[in-house]
Amino acid sequence: MGDPVFSYIHLRQFTLEIFLRMGCKPDFAEQAADGLLSADLRGIDSHGIARLSGYVRLWESGRINPNPRMGIVHETPSTAVIQGDRGLGLVVAPFAMQIAMDKALQVGSGWVSVSNSNHFGIAGRYAMMALDQDMIGIAMTNASPVVSPTFARERMLGTNPIAVAIPAGEEPAFVLDFATSTAANGKLEILQRLGEDAPAGWIQDSQGNPSSDPWELKNGGALLPLGTDREHGSHKGYGLGAMVDIFSAVLSGANYGPWVPPFVPYLPVLADQVGEGIGHFFGALRIDGFRESAEFKKQMDKWIRRFRSAEPVDAVQPVIIPGDPERIMEQTRLKTGIPVHQSVIKDLEDLAIKFSIKF
Amino acid sequence: MGDPVFSYIHLRQFTLEIFLRMGCKPDFAEQAADGLLSADLRGIDSHGIARLSGYVRLWESGRINPNPRMGIVHETPSTAVIQGDRGLGLVVAPFAMQIAMDKALQVGSGWVSVSNSNHFGIAGRYAMMALDQDMIGIAMTNASPVVSPTFARERMLGTNPIAVAIPAGEEPAFVLDFATSTAANGKLEILQRLGEDAPAGWIQDSQGNPSSDPWELKNGGALLPLGTDREHGSHKGYGLGAMVDIFSAVLSGANYGPWVPPFVPYLPVLADQVGEGIGHFFGALRIDGFRESAEFKKQMDKWIRRFRSAEPVDAVQPVIIPGDPERIMEQTRLKTGIPVHQSVIKDLEDLAIKFSIKF
Repeated sequence: MGDPVFSYIHLRQFTLEIFLRMGCKPDFAEQAADGLLSADLRGIDSHGIARLSGYVRLWESGRINPNPRMGIVHETPSTAVIQGDRGLGLVVAPFAMQIAMDKALQVGSGWVSVSNSNHFGIAGRYAMMALDQDMIGIAMTNASPVVSPTFARERMLGTNPIAVAIPAGEEPAFVLDFATSTAANGKLEILQRLGEDAPAGWIQDSQGNPSSDPWELKNGGALLPLGTDREHGSHKGYGLGAMVDIFSAVLSGANYGPWVPPFVPYLPVLADQVGEGIGHFFGALRIDGFRESAEFKKQMDKWIRRFRSAEPVDAVQPVIIPGDPERIMEQTRLKTGIPVHQSVIKDLEDLAIKFSIKF
Repeated sequence: MGDPVFSYIHLRQFTLEIFLRMGCKPDFAEQAADGLLSADLRGIDSHGIARLSGYVRLWESGRINPNPRMGIVHETPSTAVIQGDRGLGLVVAPFAMQIAMDKALQVGSGWVSVSNSNHFGIAGRYAMMALDQDMIGIAMTNASPVVSPTFARERMLGTNPIAVAIPAGEEPAFVLDFATSTAANGKLEILQRLGEDAPAGWIQDSQGNPSSDPWELKNGGALLPLGTDREHGSHKGYGLGAMVDIFSAVLSGANYGPWVPPFVPYLPVLADQVGEGIGHFFGALRIDGFRESAEFKKQMDKWIRRFRSAEPVDAVQPVIIPGDPERIMEQTRLKTGIPVHQSVIKDLEDLAIKFSIKF
């Protein structure tokens, strides 16, 4: 039997209500609800409404400012640093991405590094803001340290995702959105619920030995970088995660590496912070800064069709274009609803009681 | 017994002489020789003087113009497309990267996509051009199709490397430079010479079955994307390689995907080319477009020291900062020389005879 299913409208309305009760002004609450629910629509359940109680907990602990006064700290025609004033990442991120796009409109590209923010949901959402402007969008963020670099047993990096959205013509856009660890946290959560072991190569224990226990992170264990081990290129996954950390936080003045303040309750906040909040990085590239948009899109269509028709190993599983699974999931869930796990329903019911609203 | 060792000066002089005999004007020949030998110095032997005979072969087949008239096809203040006029990538790449840096000096960042070029050696060299200008440098290129996307048995992408160079203060720069496949071609070449098997997860055969034969690519096999298989994130490595392909070639009008003209002789050139030559992509971000350079570098030093001192799994193997191994290799080889494999020496001796010069 599957999880109970709720309509998008219902979950979105409830989430909006919670953000309003946290004191967000209406347009911020709308942005935050839309941002959070976009994860559920796209099938990245770990980053959606399942995190709503976590955002409330951060707000209660004083780490989230529901009405941040965001602003540009420093800029050039194509670059800027934004401070997020402890806002919800769900509110800070679209503000910063819009500035990147405004700059791209003026001088061909825009690049914005953000300090003093919080978790922003899924990176792909902000990269995709660029698509209908005929721009390529890029988004990344650092996050709570749960990944060990190659050769380390200490947790030094977040799952630090990278998203790149590239417009096409008749074909749907190319939307890459991935954690720089081998497996994202959300995949562990699924295994935890099912009571199943994790595949080899996802996790190590606190001493750096291989582990298949999806609860290992609670015992000091760590996720492994994309590539899994040195022989299979984990130094590349580690390097990518490190790049995201530096672009998001060393450029902006946010906390980096092991200093990133945790979203999850079982990790401590370090006292000697090296910056403010967590960091993000956004980019926008105008297609017609390179070549005529219509011609680019025609070639993108050709690229996509050629890759989709690459000879498969097994005819039942054709090659996938990045973004295909999430787009199909969104179309389905808008129609048939979003399944929500019992433990998340319990969280939402508790939130309803806390704020005296109905779930 | 190791391979015979030659001084950098000797190999560099010989390489310069070959490029001059190919008809490159002196400054192009110098750039090409420096670019090619930088791979040998940094220990990426597969991309250095071992490829010199390959460049000559491409020149003999009419695919390389020794004195390209490179130029800007289209631009905005922060973006440009450059056409490489069939030049050596070793000559086109520094020209394009310089334009990216010139734009960054003017408006904070510069982004250049390049068409009609050829293989450019190692990506890290061009990313590193930005370092002493207090800029972050980025370089990528597409390449001959030898990698199969997740679920495909067809070869659709090159090993499409990404390099990112980030300046630090007292610490050496952070220099990430990696192929988006699990293993680079050069690692297979080493195994071929040693007569050893490849580790599981590097290669598949022409039907998409796992293979450990380092010669498998000659039989229609393929390299696997970073991540190795779906369960370990190969869709991420495939997505990254695809992004490099699109930035380098669809933005510029070069050939992409399976149409990229091959460097290696055992792959055919497709008749229905979709663009011109191969493509590259370069970026430069001014540090002080985001924050004061001195403060950034201080924080980078702190980042590097903290990561270098992360608790290791095994005390004998500390955590490595991207760029450390290559920098140490360069310092060593400048002093003690560059080992060259017998088969490469034979190639160089044949080149010496062909051009009536001494090796």
